[in-house]
Amino acid sequence: MPKTVAIVGVSGFSGAELARLVSSDGELALTGAYSDRMRGGTVAGGVIVRPQADADRAAEEAEIIALATPAEVSAELAPRLLAKGARVIDLSGAFRLPDTSVFLEYYRFEHPEPALLAEAHYGLPQLPKTAGEAPAIEQARIVANPGCYATAAILALAPLASAGALDGGPVFVDGKSGVTGAGRKLAERYLFTEVAENVSLYRVVDHQHVPEIELALRRVSGVDVRVTFAPHLLPIRRGLITTCFGRLGPSVDPEAVEGAVRSAYAASSPFVRVVPIDTIDVHAVTHTPEAHVGVKVDRRGRSVVSACALDNLMKGAASQAWENIRRMCGLAARAA
Amino acid sequence: MPKTVAIVGVSGFSGAELARLVSSDGELALTGAYSDRMRGGTVAGGVIVRPQADADRAAEEAEIIALATPAEVSAELAPRLLAKGARVIDLSGAFRLPDTSVFLEYYRFEHPEPALLAEAHYGLPQLPKTAGEAPAIEQARIVANPGCYATAAILALAPLASAGALDGGPVFVDGKSGVTGAGRKLAERYLFTEVAENVSLYRVVDHQHVPEIELALRRVSGVDVRVTFAPHLLPIRRGLITTCFGRLGPSVDPEAVEGAVRSAYAASSPFVRVVPIDTIDVHAVTHTPEAHVGVKVDRRGRSVVSACALDNLMKGAASQAWENIRRMCGLAARAA
Amino acid sequence: MPKTVAIVGVSGFSGAELARLVSSDGELALTGAYSDRMRGGTVAGGVIVRPQADADRAAEEAEIIALATPAEVSAELAPRLLAKGARVIDLSGAFRLPDTSVFLEYYRFEHPEPALLAEAHYGLPQLPKTAGEAPAIEQARIVANPGCYATAAILALAPLASAGALDGGPVFVDGKSGVTGAGRKLAERYLFTEVAENVSLYRVVDHQHVPEIELALRRVSGVDVRVTFAPHLLPIRRGLITTCFGRLGPSVDPEAVEGAVRSAYAASSPFVRVVPIDTIDVHAVTHTPEAHVGVKVDRRGRSVVSACALDNLMKGAASQAWENIRRMCGLAARAA
Amino acid sequence: MPKTVAIVGVSGFSGAELARLVSSDGELALTGAYSDRMRGGTVAGGVIVRPQADADRAAEEAEIIALATPAEVSAELAPRLLAKGARVIDLSGAFRLPDTSVFLEYYRFEHPEPALLAEAHYGLPQLPKTAGEAPAIEQARIVANPGCYATAAILALAPLASAGALDGGPVFVDGKSGVTGAGRKLAERYLFTEVAENVSLYRVVDHQHVPEIELALRRVSGVDVRVTFAPHLLPIRRGLITTCFGRLGPSVDPEAVEGAVRSAYAASSPFVRVVPIDTIDVHAVTHTPEAHVGVKVDRRGRSVVSACALDNLMKGAASQAWENIRRMCGLAARAA
Repeated sequence: MPKTVAIVGVSGFSGAELARLVSSDGELALTGAYSDRMRGGTVAGGVIVRPQADADRAAEEAEIIALATPAEVSAELAPRLLAKGARVIDLSGAFRLPDTSVFLEYYRFEHPEPALLAEAHYGLPQLPKTAGEAPAIEQARIVANPGCYATAAILALAPLASAGALDGGPVFVDGKSGVTGAGRKLAERYLFTEVAENVSLYRVVDHQHVPEIELALRRVSGVDVRVTFAPHLLPIRRGLITTCFGRLGPSVDPEAVEGAVRSAYAASSPFVRVVPIDTIDVHAVTHTPEAHVGVKVDRRGRSVVSACALDNLMKGAASQAWENIRRMCGLAARAA
Repeated sequence: MPKTVAIVGVSGFSGAELARLVSSDGELALTGAYSDRMRGGTVAGGVIVRPQADADRAAEEAEIIALATPAEVSAELAPRLLAKGARVIDLSGAFRLPDTSVFLEYYRFEHPEPALLAEAHYGLPQLPKTAGEAPAIEQARIVANPGCYATAAILALAPLASAGALDGGPVFVDGKSGVTGAGRKLAERYLFTEVAENVSLYRVVDHQHVPEIELALRRVSGVDVRVTFAPHLLPIRRGLITTCFGRLGPSVDPEAVEGAVRSAYAASSPFVRVVPIDTIDVHAVTHTPEAHVGVKVDRRGRSVVSACALDNLMKGAASQAWENIRRMCGLAARAA
Repeated sequence: MPKTVAIVGVSGFSGAELARLVSSDGELALTGAYSDRMRGGTVAGGVIVRPQADADRAAEEAEIIALATPAEVSAELAPRLLAKGARVIDLSGAFRLPDTSVFLEYYRFEHPEPALLAEAHYGLPQLPKTAGEAPAIEQARIVANPGCYATAAILALAPLASAGALDGGPVFVDGKSGVTGAGRKLAERYLFTEVAENVSLYRVVDHQHVPEIELALRRVSGVDVRVTFAPHLLPIRRGLITTCFGRLGPSVDPEAVEGAVRSAYAASSPFVRVVPIDTIDVHAVTHTPEAHVGVKVDRRGRSVVSACALDNLMKGAASQAWENIRRMCGLAARAA
Repeated sequence: MPKTVAIVGVSGFSGAELARLVSSDGELALTGAYSDRMRGGTVAGGVIVRPQADADRAAEEAEIIALATPAEVSAELAPRLLAKGARVIDLSGAFRLPDTSVFLEYYRFEHPEPALLAEAHYGLPQLPKTAGEAPAIEQARIVANPGCYATAAILALAPLASAGALDGGPVFVDGKSGVTGAGRKLAERYLFTEVAENVSLYRVVDHQHVPEIELALRRVSGVDVRVTFAPHLLPIRRGLITTCFGRLGPSVDPEAVEGAVRSAYAASSPFVRVVPIDTIDVHAVTHTPEAHVGVKVDRRGRSVVSACALDNLMKGAASQAWENIRRMCGLAARAA
């Protein structure tokens, strides 16, 4: 008997990918879909799309409800669905930060249900397990699906932080994302004429994924790690690379660093692969649920570069949500 | 009476741009052009292109000879042209590093005329002047035109290094370049099918522009600065951004850093403009001789991001060579 | 003493190119510029941009006023400016069709000043001269600058129609345009995510340039020529190709057709060049005021293919307007 | 018991897609794979790739051998494999033209086994059945998989020709293809710098798919139809559109034409869909085995436009080969 899943916001880039993944997974069943844009149409698996205003009814038709909606919408909708007994996984940033004041600083709206911030489980399956983490995702009522940049930065940096390889000072993340990272936004900035043959910086230092990355690094290392982040918009539709830079701690053996990263992902998952850093590119991961991680030590500078490539709509959104939905249901990890 | 200029390698991307700039500059005259690919054709200004094997004759027809040739070719050709009394500006990396062992490590061939390495003037016009620099470019027999990544990294980092804002540890440079940065190379890596909708890392840590950047930073700051560099190939034809990351020194006032960068370029040049970092993009500089520099301090991390965008074929190659040729001739800087 | 020109709609793609061309032409002077988007800013030549609501004042500051505005705006504005004694060149379609009912069918709004439709001079400089054409552009009060597709289709087909090479049945035009052909429109259709790696058909058969092309072909041939047109949107920013197909008349010598096209443009203009059809591409004409025309006869089918490439913002809009402004002023044609 | 298939040339774009399709089809089994480029590696389904020089051994390991090799290679290899008792499907043009002199004219090499040209079955599953066609594909020893342009042109034109809607004169095909249409060729013409932001014409009138299209149209209509073809290279990786133009016969009812096209594909196949012509684009068919066909009559000109979009690597190559392999084995058509 497959576990039932409904998706709100099914017409967005991530929602549509998630519908495809759920409906082709024999152990899950897509039983509801909501979107104003596609209302009356059907999605993968033949499910009829209803208007988003009816989304509260999703709690009656599915055990797990995935919200592929803007953060403001998710923050309003999730509490209502939870109150009706459903479990929720949210693909927006509405539940990724446990601290309400940090949330306000980066998301710029008052969270309507701050108590849920502390309860939400941050669902990055390949993050090394830590003692204090609770509740386990199998019991979680609400799961926050990580941000695309955050996923890539954390996958690149967590093994270094966890192994104690970094010196304690700030680390640097250079993010490069395809245009679907912004969703289907109708803004001049995303017109073909503006994006093609261009690269641009935006939200340098202030991007909302910074606290999310810092939080994950503190969890795996037990110490504070400051992240200075510079995101860039690239002329590609999908795909994302984070190139991360740090300094090695004074007693760290440079020869051991690359091995530490390799072993961190050796057994953990079918979805993270360590590859030579000079072979990392976007083509290799596009349309797949995989992230590729590479690392290289600069012995002259006692510094380290680690990079991660993934498909922002898959491992950076929908396929990670699908991984999490399977974990919420107690199903084993497996290839898409 | 205009100063006479010949160009060897006039059919490459940089050589062609330089021919256009020289021939439309009333104070310079293009009097010779060499290329096997275009032999018998004409370039900007109506000059007939002769085979590259005849390039030694350039010394008879021009005061200044620009070499837009691969490093191995420039290294052989420059000494012969100098011996005939010409002055040379080289757009390759053949004369950018004064140290022969460093040269061998990064360029991987024995330099045929190592004495010239120490003599060559490194021509980055906006680099802050330093006491020991000699000879001045007006007297220089041979000028090394900087690399495209190196120009952008130095323009972003030199004001910070020069002002003593950095902490002495390694700085990090994330480079992003359009495909013309590699010249017109026929390699699978540069096919449309490989580049479009892709981004890829290459030569991480080991790129040959690393010692060039370090050398310039030492010149302007008087201290060693290690550079850890990660270059990326982007799906654009021209344009380049370096995004640079460093930590502030313990006694540095974070509030003063952004002003230091602005004042560094205030009076120096029509070709470097300081802009808000979140507005930096490639479109604004493509087909222009301008570099745009932006800087932002991360007060939480006591770190700094500085970025530079330029057109790799213009400020990263041809228009910088044109600036240098004018300086070699004692002509004032002016807009293209 | 340069002729004075003002531009309304100076912030659009075409308006901005025209400002650049006018201000760098020593025989013309840009004396006014209007745009809401750029109000208070400056354009090429240092002219301050005023709000579009003030555009009526342009008649006081310039002899010739170029309207780079939507057809509805041009149709309202032109009569008012003419009434104040200015001469007008309109880059929209508002004055390209002399017949009000045809205008209504294709542009879908009632023309507010139908009398002007018959008066307007259609300004395609390379169209072969015909006896009945009046008034000459030197005396014209209002000039309609041709559409981008129309210019390319007419340049490809007019020599064939004029030489009597076609059989009298419909001719076929396959149009392929870059995205700037649609202006800076904020519509989902023009987002990077929709356009990149895509090609799409639109307005097949019904496009508003059809009657404009038919009118020009009738002028040069004296007979009706039906045009069946299929436009396509391409993933490029600028550039346009029309590939045109026709059948040869029964008494036409196939061997003479290609020569007829070559001789049609031999002496006419610095701006149209006949090249081998298999060498036609967009790169060769982008950022130039040139159109490239190629023709090839299919002897087996007694049919002919003629193609034209041009930059839709230059020969398809701004540089053609600049050519026309010079002709309105009695200035000789010359390279940009 | 699945039918066994081997692929020679498995590392090319089409070969790799075909390997993926065969190995995920439960009624087929991939049992051999050959390629010099990937030798020693594995392809979809875990099959180890052997050098192409060993391809003769494919006849021992598979019932059906697919050749994704250049025409010259296929022409040599197919007879040897047939002699060993295997059945062959060839994705190149080596067996698409029954006439040896036409073959020589368009492919420019002497066919080594001309007798096979007449024997080969032309495998376009949606081509209307005709009386004289023999042998049926179930019995065919050798199947020629159609060209990408030819497939799209035939799907757009065959219903018109078959219904007698055309006037007997030449029809016109404007082809637009992504770069993978040329395979993984290392030529300057296919570099990113040449293709991006460009469109170009090539092989106008003379392209080798012309006789292939004419042959199919004669088969379905019983009369000769001349095709004048103009192919274009587009800045996309995959996807292809043919836009076709013809004149209606004198007694044809224009109102009936669009219905004739719709009914031609109503029952034939899960792989051809008739859609409104103004909605045709490449995105809708990329990575799918579907072709989209649209048609529109120009009543003013008594002419017709029909267009077809498909993925050149799927319906234009690999998925059509997979359809044909299933038909060779007597398996019913079904979705990929």
